[in-house]
Amino acid sequence: MGILLLFNGGFMLIPSIYSWIIGELVALDIAVSALISISAGLSAMFFTRKHDKDISPKEGYLIVSLGWLFMVLSGMLPYVISGEISGVENSFFETMSGYTTTGASIVNDIEALPQGIMLWRSLTHWIGGMGIIVLAVAILPFLGIGGMQLFSAESPGPSADKVKPKIADTAKRLWFIYFGYTLSETILLKVAGMNWFDATNHALSTLSTGGFSTKNASLAYWNDSPVIQYIIILFMFLAGTNFVVSYYAFKGRINKVLHNEEFKWYFFFIAGFTAITSLSIYFMSDPSIASIDYPMVLGKAESAVRHGLFQVLAVITTTGFVTADYTLWTPLITLLFFGLFFLGGSAGSTSGGVKVVRHVIMIKNGFQEFRRILHPNAVLPVRYKGSSVDQKIVYNILGFFILYALSFIIGAVVFAGTGLDFESALGASASSLGNVGPAFGTLSPVDNYASLTVFGKYWSSFLMLIGRLELFTVLILFTPYFWKNT
Amino acid sequence: MGILLLFNGGFMLIPSIYSWIIGELVALDIAVSALISISAGLSAMFFTRKHDKDISPKEGYLIVSLGWLFMVLSGMLPYVISGEISGVENSFFETMSGYTTTGASIVNDIEALPQGIMLWRSLTHWIGGMGIIVLAVAILPFLGIGGMQLFSAESPGPSADKVKPKIADTAKRLWFIYFGYTLSETILLKVAGMNWFDATNHALSTLSTGGFSTKNASLAYWNDSPVIQYIIILFMFLAGTNFVVSYYAFKGRINKVLHNEEFKWYFFFIAGFTAITSLSIYFMSDPSIASIDYPMVLGKAESAVRHGLFQVLAVITTTGFVTADYTLWTPLITLLFFGLFFLGGSAGSTSGGVKVVRHVIMIKNGFQEFRRILHPNAVLPVRYKGSSVDQKIVYNILGFFILYALSFIIGAVVFAGTGLDFESALGASASSLGNVGPAFGTLSPVDNYASLTVFGKYWSSFLMLIGRLELFTVLILFTPYFWKNT
Ligand SMILES: [K+]
Ligand SMILES: [K+]
Repeated sequence: MGILLLFNGGFMLIPSIYSWIIGELVALDIAVSALISISAGLSAMFFTRKHDKDISPKEGYLIVSLGWLFMVLSGMLPYVISGEISGVENSFFETMSGYTTTGASIVNDIEALPQGIMLWRSLTHWIGGMGIIVLAVAILPFLGIGGMQLFSAESPGPSADKVKPKIADTAKRLWFIYFGYTLSETILLKVAGMNWFDATNHALSTLSTGGFSTKNASLAYWNDSPVIQYIIILFMFLAGTNFVVSYYAFKGRINKVLHNEEFKWYFFFIAGFTAITSLSIYFMSDPSIASIDYPMVLGKAESAVRHGLFQVLAVITTTGFVTADYTLWTPLITLLFFGLFFLGGSAGSTSGGVKVVRHVIMIKNGFQEFRRILHPNAVLPVRYKGSSVDQKIVYNILGFFILYALSFIIGAVVFAGTGLDFESALGASASSLGNVGPAFGTLSPVDNYASLTVFGKYWSSFLMLIGRLELFTVLILFTPYFWKNT
Repeated sequence: MGILLLFNGGFMLIPSIYSWIIGELVALDIAVSALISISAGLSAMFFTRKHDKDISPKEGYLIVSLGWLFMVLSGMLPYVISGEISGVENSFFETMSGYTTTGASIVNDIEALPQGIMLWRSLTHWIGGMGIIVLAVAILPFLGIGGMQLFSAESPGPSADKVKPKIADTAKRLWFIYFGYTLSETILLKVAGMNWFDATNHALSTLSTGGFSTKNASLAYWNDSPVIQYIIILFMFLAGTNFVVSYYAFKGRINKVLHNEEFKWYFFFIAGFTAITSLSIYFMSDPSIASIDYPMVLGKAESAVRHGLFQVLAVITTTGFVTADYTLWTPLITLLFFGLFFLGGSAGSTSGGVKVVRHVIMIKNGFQEFRRILHPNAVLPVRYKGSSVDQKIVYNILGFFILYALSFIIGAVVFAGTGLDFESALGASASSLGNVGPAFGTLSPVDNYASLTVFGKYWSSFLMLIGRLELFTVLILFTPYFWKNT
């Protein structure tokens, strides 16, 4: 735990130094925050140094959940100390939204923030993304949550050893890819016309599927620059892909990439939903009603395809960047996107939501269920990647989905209790839980979360956290079974 | 199949004779419809008379689904021939809504209909309710759908013989109770001040959890008569209870009633949600904004409790009667009710939706899932009524719920494609699928379904049908597995 804070404080020095270089006053505030985090981290390490290294699964849940919470408490210091975000609940919300890579914001005028604070904001995304990669490859499979054991190691069974001689080693390789992608995107965005600062921040936000932008209009600011938007599209796609797939691609094992079942479905889902969305925009939508500036640089068809693809990817990968207000396109798109909030990207990526692989297993199980009814005595397992999936894992996944659905509806009822209307309450719940960011109604892509009540902000933060940690990790702490000595 | 039409034609003679007695011109139209149905039924029986009596499950699905469809085609004749409902899609919709006990209507001015047509409308509910009781006790368990084998016979295992010496016998006993309740409610409503016609129609609509009324304002017409509303409340409660429980109660086996697990949960759900709703109305709602007349005959507290209880029951039992527009109360209630659309009454009742018992199994399984994560090697079955539930049945139920959720979201996206806004599309889908009736937005309790497009009406009818027949019965016909010769 201590090491997390140390590490967090270390990262905080980056925006502090940057601020200092460009001569901003907040440099000192961020530096103080960094020092507090580092000292807290060091003392925590000092007091726990005699603790033995073996942790049980039970301790695992507690460490992951509390670890994330301490990160937030430390990460909000720059906002609180600098006073750039007023209200503790606002700083807490913005930081939780950062680390969980949700990207929902309570800042009304982002462009008025000092650049050091903006950079720290984007860095919380990027640090969160690193954490998620570790969770996906190492921690969640070990805890056996929601069927994650299925898709953690790319090839389950004996050959898994090839992929991960050691878990720490795997994590490092994937972090290397994560870092490499971020750097590449930064350079490409710069070449395409962004300045270094915007390029860096957007790259940090893209790879983590976070969605914080340095502009109030998000990516719609660059609606006259299709190249920039296509670069973001490419990297959103990569960020929603299992990083292990990227690893294989770099190793030249293209065969493994093309035979990755989740990747195929991920690709076809995006292609299919983009087709529906773009056709719907092209034939039925009136772009002029959007409150976002919407120039059609390369003609109406290109514009429909680009914005359709961009927004479908932004929602499926749960990045939440905005080039247009999809709630104003057509009712069909609004509702389709609401459905997509529950899809999510690939497992082993930084995206949130239910994840493609779980849907694939559920759909396949659904079809098998029909066959089971017709042939009650036949054994009909679900097949995935050519082998049959353990019944227990299918069971885990169904249980996960139902818990997700229940959390969603309770989440929405509570939001409605704080005064949100029907559409906004459902959207806020789905968006928080799925770590997407923008939602519907009063929380549409052109609005932000500042209008929530204080309680509503904490509730949203809670949903972001449980969604990010695959529900069971956090919610198990609220069950009596956890605290029983057995 | 032939016998169904014969039977349907026989029932049609009732409103025909009634119309003739009160001197309405539609008497002849309805009589013609009855004759067509009876002749069609007789010829169908003649041509299939050599068919052997043993039916396979596969034939079972086809017979149930097609049987329902033929009933609708025959049941819509009175509307079509009399011309009282114009447009084939409207007659089809109204009839499907009747037999599936949904109670959604496309008639703008119900009170302008001839009484014979009104009576036939209510009778389609009542006939549908009889069909559902047979489905629940005899057909669905035989087909093994969605865990229905669990709650069909009250006591699974050897002692089941006591309850159902023969399935036909059970069905007859439950029909007797169904008929007895209908008669009692009619008499009580008459005593409380309704005329015989209104009393009969509302009793037919209540016991079938249908929801068609003889008044445009539904039960809000009697908002100045709390006694009438309390009578309806009582019978909605009974209609949402497993009829086998009523059977035990009449046999004096109160112990069996009190130990019925689903009944207990059903009771506590209603009590809990009524408490939330009534408190929310009492403290936060302004009744004067309702477009429905809302006199507080016995004071504000009684009014809040009565309307809260009435609407909670109307939604949970999926009856869909209306005393007030719950979409205008508070955002909390609107969203809570949206959630309740997915609850449903008890299995073995005439109500629609997912059903209480399935939720109980899912919730218990959810808790067990947490324990399974903590103790991966322990065997932790779900317990229901003191014994552990077969893993296969739990699996069925989880699969059912996921298919329900998927049908719901696809249903809503298609509605949005016909132009419905976000709230209306979600409401229409949940309401059609759950056989509730009123929904939200443009289909709120004070509106009706007349504004849907032609396609939207057929789509809604389709959702009503698949919801009523527990999804699998109908949807299995669309799978390739069904048509394979194995
Ligand atoms: K996001
Ligand atoms: K109904």
